[in-house]
Amino acid sequence: MTPADPTPDEAAARAALTVVAEPGEPAMGALLAERPATQIWAALRSDTPLAAPSGCRNTVAFQARLARWRTRARGVDADTLLTLAGEHGIRLVLPGEPEWPSQLDSLAESRPYALWVRGAHDLRNACLRSVSLVGSRAASGYGLHVAAELSYTLAEHGWCTVSGGAYGIDGAAHRGALAGGAATVAVLASGLDISYPRGHERLFAEAAAHGALVSEHPPGTTPTRRSFLVRNRLIAALSPGTVVVEAGLRSGALNTAAHARELLRVLMAVPGPVTSALSAGCHRLLRDYQAVCVSGADDVIEQVGRIGADLGGGEWPLLEAELLDDTAREVLAALPGRGSAGVAAIAADSGLDPDSALRRLGLLAAAGYVERAAGGWRRKVPDLRKPRG
Amino acid sequence: MTPADPTPDEAAARAALTVVAEPGEPAMGALLAERPATQIWAALRSDTPLAAPSGCRNTVAFQARLARWRTRARGVDADTLLTLAGEHGIRLVLPGEPEWPSQLDSLAESRPYALWVRGAHDLRNACLRSVSLVGSRAASGYGLHVAAELSYTLAEHGWCTVSGGAYGIDGAAHRGALAGGAATVAVLASGLDISYPRGHERLFAEAAAHGALVSEHPPGTTPTRRSFLVRNRLIAALSPGTVVVEAGLRSGALNTAAHARELLRVLMAVPGPVTSALSAGCHRLLRDYQAVCVSGADDVIEQVGRIGADLGGGEWPLLEAELLDDTAREVLAALPGRGSAGVAAIAADSGLDPDSALRRLGLLAAAGYVERAAGGWRRKVPDLRKPRG
Repeated sequence: MTPADPTPDEAAARAALTVVAEPGEPAMGALLAERPATQIWAALRSDTPLAAPSGCRNTVAFQARLARWRTRARGVDADTLLTLAGEHGIRLVLPGEPEWPSQLDSLAESRPYALWVRGAHDLRNACLRSVSLVGSRAASGYGLHVAAELSYTLAEHGWCTVSGGAYGIDGAAHRGALAGGAATVAVLASGLDISYPRGHERLFAEAAAHGALVSEHPPGTTPTRRSFLVRNRLIAALSPGTVVVEAGLRSGALNTAAHARELLRVLMAVPGPVTSALSAGCHRLLRDYQAVCVSGADDVIEQVGRIGADLGGGEWPLLEAELLDDTAREVLAALPGRGSAGVAAIAADSGLDPDSALRRLGLLAAAGYVERAAGGWRRKVPDLRKPRG
Repeated sequence: MTPADPTPDEAAARAALTVVAEPGEPAMGALLAERPATQIWAALRSDTPLAAPSGCRNTVAFQARLARWRTRARGVDADTLLTLAGEHGIRLVLPGEPEWPSQLDSLAESRPYALWVRGAHDLRNACLRSVSLVGSRAASGYGLHVAAELSYTLAEHGWCTVSGGAYGIDGAAHRGALAGGAATVAVLASGLDISYPRGHERLFAEAAAHGALVSEHPPGTTPTRRSFLVRNRLIAALSPGTVVVEAGLRSGALNTAAHARELLRVLMAVPGPVTSALSAGCHRLLRDYQAVCVSGADDVIEQVGRIGADLGGGEWPLLEAELLDDTAREVLAALPGRGSAGVAAIAADSGLDPDSALRRLGLLAAAGYVERAAGGWRRKVPDLRKPRG
């Protein structure tokens, strides 16, 4: 069940659920598909019975899981979780909210219960035109060069890069996107108040300033081997296509690639010298997994661009007019019919603070309604003339 | 029309036709499919009328072509052509003869009228387990290394390498095969008495000693731009699979790749750094032409090996018992039921000179009937037990 307009209680309950359940537990996903989070959370806290989700085939395992959740729930103060997170600049994004990337709904029962987000950029907006770039931590000079070049050129063409924030290819991908002037989204396996790896503390600060950090884990969570693997499905799900830049045969990037394939996203691989073990995983993807061979940003855009162009029938969501939330509509209405307006004026006119106004403008830009102009922002006239929806 | 047992006159006539017509002229191919070469040759020499082949749609163009052939025919002495070629160690192989690689029949009307062959190895035998390796003349160190390594390892596994004898990838491919102890087949765009390129004179001598040189052109022909392109279809047709090792976007190797695809051969490409323009052609083949990504000999054998394993239904011919020529049968009969025999003994027993006996043994080995053993050659018992044909 995805409330169209989640209540503060629902937010607090979902926040608490990200503490008690591991990300991607299908049992919790199934429960949340049937009941409000408040109801689940109340049951966990009060030791009142909680029926297994319909279709649950192993009720014994469900009861064991329930017991574990209840134990963990005792230590959680749902009401203060969001306040504490907010002090770290971390917000919670719930399914159905304007910032929720609805492409995550294709994860079905392993859809996140909620997302913890830190950063200036609207997450959904950033992911509308995004590509996931992944690869080995122990990358070669070749791999680092290609990753940075690729995300930089994608950025120049207005495509955001999603990656995992790790050393090696991930880091080069984030840095290239930032250098190219685009947003970048780092999907982390830890709480967003923790910089892992430590050496990327500054990179994460930049990504937060010009993009977004995302995690399923509440603040304070340290990463585990499992959390990296579970996290990979989000990297694959957030964008229409995943590019494996450089990966050995045992690289975790191949796990992300498997998710991308499973989720019917475009799977791409950058080839490299066959004499390099660090490209062997990419070559296997090309040979055995129908990955598309991409040599540069043009190739990638040709692949993921098709999805954007293939509106309507495609599974990939672009934001249609009827999907704009009220605030976005107000911001759009605040823009003059001709010429441009500054953010401050738009914010005042729509009754928002400048940061919120800017976030909506970004969203509207990604959806093709507005664009940056000399004086601030203006309507994208040709697009408005077209009948939409 | 493919005579089962071509006559000396037919051989002389076909030899003459390789002089008067350009290789791969469909009009000549169509004529030869309907009439003996002797008849065509006689008509060209005597200025008697020659009807266009059935299905010929442009009889005016055919008559013009005929006129050109007649003009050229005046200077040709069919009877001495084979003698002169023989003085250079060059023999003529006709469709239907035991040494004819019957996979060339899939070229239909562009099937060679005959093949000029020089070398110790039986051409058909060499091509039974062969892979075509092609690539740029101006290859990189990476490409040369990969080509040599690939053909060397293929040779170690008993696979012969077919290539075009050019500088760069072709040369590395031939050399690797020879170093690995396998035969190599160089398909040349000139007469086989001419070493083109000059710098490969020694390589061609080695290829002739341990493999075969092949051409559609009679001795004395110098190569032209067109003859290189027309030659490429033979490289693609002779083997079950073509590997493009390194090729820029305008490399002639892509022409060979196009022929391989058209002929339903396995098309493979070796990836390289995306930063190298010399691999851009390979990457295009991987991206747009469904080429299989191969990183080494194992990958290649997995692809072409399937064809060998897929006997019966497959289009690729392995030599069935009924297809063995009488001489091969005699050589097979000369082998003891148990244990091995030396070439001299086998030759004596089958009434052949040792060279001819060795050639048949190679053919029988490629077809799975015999194998090398400590004492010379022996029957491959398990294969003989299976019902064949």
